[in-house]
Amino acid sequence: MKHPKTVALSKLHMFRKILIANRGEIALRVIRACREMGIRSVIAHSEADRDSLPVQMADERICIGPGASGKSYLNIPNIISAAFISNAEAIHPGYGFLSENTSFAQICKDVNITFIGPSADVMSVMGDKVSARQAMVEAGLPTLPGTPVLRTLAEAKDAAREIGFPLMLKAVAGGGGRGIRLINHPDEFERTFTVAQNEVREAFHDDGIYLERYLAKARHVEIQVLVDNYGHGVHLGERNCSCQRRNQKVIEESPTPILPRELCEEMGARAVRAVEKVGYRNAGTLEFLVDEQNRYYFMEMNTRLQVEHPVTEMVTSLDLVKEQLHIASGEPLRLRQEDIVLRGHSIECRITAEDADKDFRPQTGVIEKYLPPGGPGVRVDSHLYTGYEVPPHYDSLLAKLVVWAEDRDQAIARMQRALEEFVIEGITTTIPFHQRLLKHEGFISGDTYTRFIQEQAGALGIK
Amino acid sequence: MKHPKTVALSKLHMFRKILIANRGEIALRVIRACREMGIRSVIAHSEADRDSLPVQMADERICIGPGASGKSYLNIPNIISAAFISNAEAIHPGYGFLSENTSFAQICKDVNITFIGPSADVMSVMGDKVSARQAMVEAGLPTLPGTPVLRTLAEAKDAAREIGFPLMLKAVAGGGGRGIRLINHPDEFERTFTVAQNEVREAFHDDGIYLERYLAKARHVEIQVLVDNYGHGVHLGERNCSCQRRNQKVIEESPTPILPRELCEEMGARAVRAVEKVGYRNAGTLEFLVDEQNRYYFMEMNTRLQVEHPVTEMVTSLDLVKEQLHIASGEPLRLRQEDIVLRGHSIECRITAEDADKDFRPQTGVIEKYLPPGGPGVRVDSHLYTGYEVPPHYDSLLAKLVVWAEDRDQAIARMQRALEEFVIEGITTTIPFHQRLLKHEGFISGDTYTRFIQEQAGALGIK
Repeated sequence: MKHPKTVALSKLHMFRKILIANRGEIALRVIRACREMGIRSVIAHSEADRDSLPVQMADERICIGPGASGKSYLNIPNIISAAFISNAEAIHPGYGFLSENTSFAQICKDVNITFIGPSADVMSVMGDKVSARQAMVEAGLPTLPGTPVLRTLAEAKDAAREIGFPLMLKAVAGGGGRGIRLINHPDEFERTFTVAQNEVREAFHDDGIYLERYLAKARHVEIQVLVDNYGHGVHLGERNCSCQRRNQKVIEESPTPILPRELCEEMGARAVRAVEKVGYRNAGTLEFLVDEQNRYYFMEMNTRLQVEHPVTEMVTSLDLVKEQLHIASGEPLRLRQEDIVLRGHSIECRITAEDADKDFRPQTGVIEKYLPPGGPGVRVDSHLYTGYEVPPHYDSLLAKLVVWAEDRDQAIARMQRALEEFVIEGITTTIPFHQRLLKHEGFISGDTYTRFIQEQAGALGIK
Repeated sequence: MKHPKTVALSKLHMFRKILIANRGEIALRVIRACREMGIRSVIAHSEADRDSLPVQMADERICIGPGASGKSYLNIPNIISAAFISNAEAIHPGYGFLSENTSFAQICKDVNITFIGPSADVMSVMGDKVSARQAMVEAGLPTLPGTPVLRTLAEAKDAAREIGFPLMLKAVAGGGGRGIRLINHPDEFERTFTVAQNEVREAFHDDGIYLERYLAKARHVEIQVLVDNYGHGVHLGERNCSCQRRNQKVIEESPTPILPRELCEEMGARAVRAVEKVGYRNAGTLEFLVDEQNRYYFMEMNTRLQVEHPVTEMVTSLDLVKEQLHIASGEPLRLRQEDIVLRGHSIECRITAEDADKDFRPQTGVIEKYLPPGGPGVRVDSHLYTGYEVPPHYDSLLAKLVVWAEDRDQAIARMQRALEEFVIEGITTTIPFHQRLLKHEGFISGDTYTRFIQEQAGALGIK
């Protein structure tokens, strides 16, 4: 590790202008950071997002294609062209879309535009779940017993017998909960494997599958790391994302209730050593499962900013997007691990345009009335406004409602208050579902696990 | 001082229901705290506020009279009746209206309703500027050379000669900037005195006047204190409210830029000792002027929650309304002075319905579009919503925009970003004026003083 002090600071400069290759609340989030840092923001947007708030708020806007993501937010040539046209020095990919696309990161590098994230090389190792697991094992992290990449039913069947049932089947190329299946019994294996493989082959053009031991009652705990371009890293504590529905996070919080502080500290310290070892750069998240005996297993790494980063911001008082920009511009990390303390408690609810009463069917429509909650300890990250039409092309996230309070009980009370205040009319949202979740004794006790929502579906009114 | 531990905690109980004798953003602020604490809130509201957000959000609502304050928010019999009808155990007076009305506090006590504030006795001493100054001198605080209450021109003229010119003339019963005048030369004295005395006699039925030495370049710095019912007090640091227009605060911040930390600590420590000495209870603020040599002088005390309390909340991470409720319910202060640390920097802009281009003429009308800023470090306390009609009867405060950041420079950048995002259409607001203020080098340097806005009027575009 090169010591930060050896860097010639005078030669560094912060970007004058960056391009944001994303939409919705995260585009707005990046624009806000840019504005506060005096960086001009250019938004590359689809036709469907022409009237969106981030497009209105960015300093410059360039339309990169029609509504369908493949033709706009995933359209690498158009995005690179937009960066050239606007003279942007760097590209912030947000989350989703191209944020973990190795070719995109490499192309940015080739055309001399800074990709705000890790290098394509490290991304290709850490973005692939199987090679990431391999790298993290070598870097000293424990993982769940599992297999290498499997492509044929025959080898998969053999591997499954060795791991034992129940087990988890995962697609190498999956993401956002897709391509993940629980298999309880050997009889189900053949059919599930075949269906899953066909599905990911079509969706991602990659039929690689791997198997992992299944934990009955696992907590999802993740570690946020920051590493500068000189290999100096810190962790910003953990987030508990155990409240999931079909492997999609619903509520996240920091710090983690129930788990001992020392355990989280240990996970954090080991995570930093591991990412330093593999040459990781910029912000990233290591996801772990923690079993009932508090043993933890590295699952995968997200080589980008995450949706739930605000809970970490609330308890550390740091601005992660600003940190990303500082790192990407070549500044050495100004943070030392001992300066980072988690204060109080933060919770985030992902408010989505879904009808919880109808199996969370996605909703579209016009926001007829929008009034976010306010007052102490409440933060809203949302691209909504009264009159906004939620387009059908993208994910259903409407708003991230984030609260901070002195302790978890007060944070829950504040979240309940804020959910009650939140007015979004014209479209069905998951606000009522979140209200029920926040009142559930399992949530209140802090004893949530990845199958909590599924197992408590009746009590949560989602049948 | 009785030690908190001697209190029988088991006998205490938090209020089940309180009445809020106020309106607008501060009513909403108290409702929010109540909701988070599981206390039912009853709002006593005027006919003009029937459709207001706090009336919609309170658990119960009682109309106490027509729009004019005198017939509703200052109508003591109706408010007391509303508390009885609703079985409220306590009344939160907010700021303004009856919050510093000694009779009201006394009547509450007489009818066995807890007034959330100090006792009527202490309020009558500290609410009167002359007796407050006398009490604080006895309690060890420095004050500006000044006079006792004067009622005749003859005695005033003699006193003025002793103090010297320029001097400040102040009405005992004034408030909110009214009844305060700067007199530069002996020749102006007779006329100004007579006009001022007539004015306050008509407005407040009290013609008491006092004189004080005038400081050319004074900073307004105030100390927030909390004292429990057992005489144990703490201070929560200071607020700098030097950005004023006609003695009305425009921007407040904490901590104070420029002044040495030790000076503020000393002011805080002395303020706590003084309020403990006079038997003060609950939240209060001691206002000081600080001269160019950093000498500080106690000016007056506000025996209530202040408009600008959020900046203290942002840097201390405390909830002052909750603290008020804990104290009023008889709980001993759980805070020790050494636990209270000011972290980062917070700024508040008071967004009002005034036209800065037309001598800040108050505006009324319908809010056609309302979208508050969001994202990290931004807090909005406002009762506005799209479609709300701003009534003509009350003060012009529309929203308190509060930001927090690691340091003052970043807080200023964040405030500029938030002001830029803030959408309030249908009525002229002071947002553009605040934007100019935030960009003024005098403000940016932190070197503001009470006459700063007046002297920089040209640069600030208010002629």
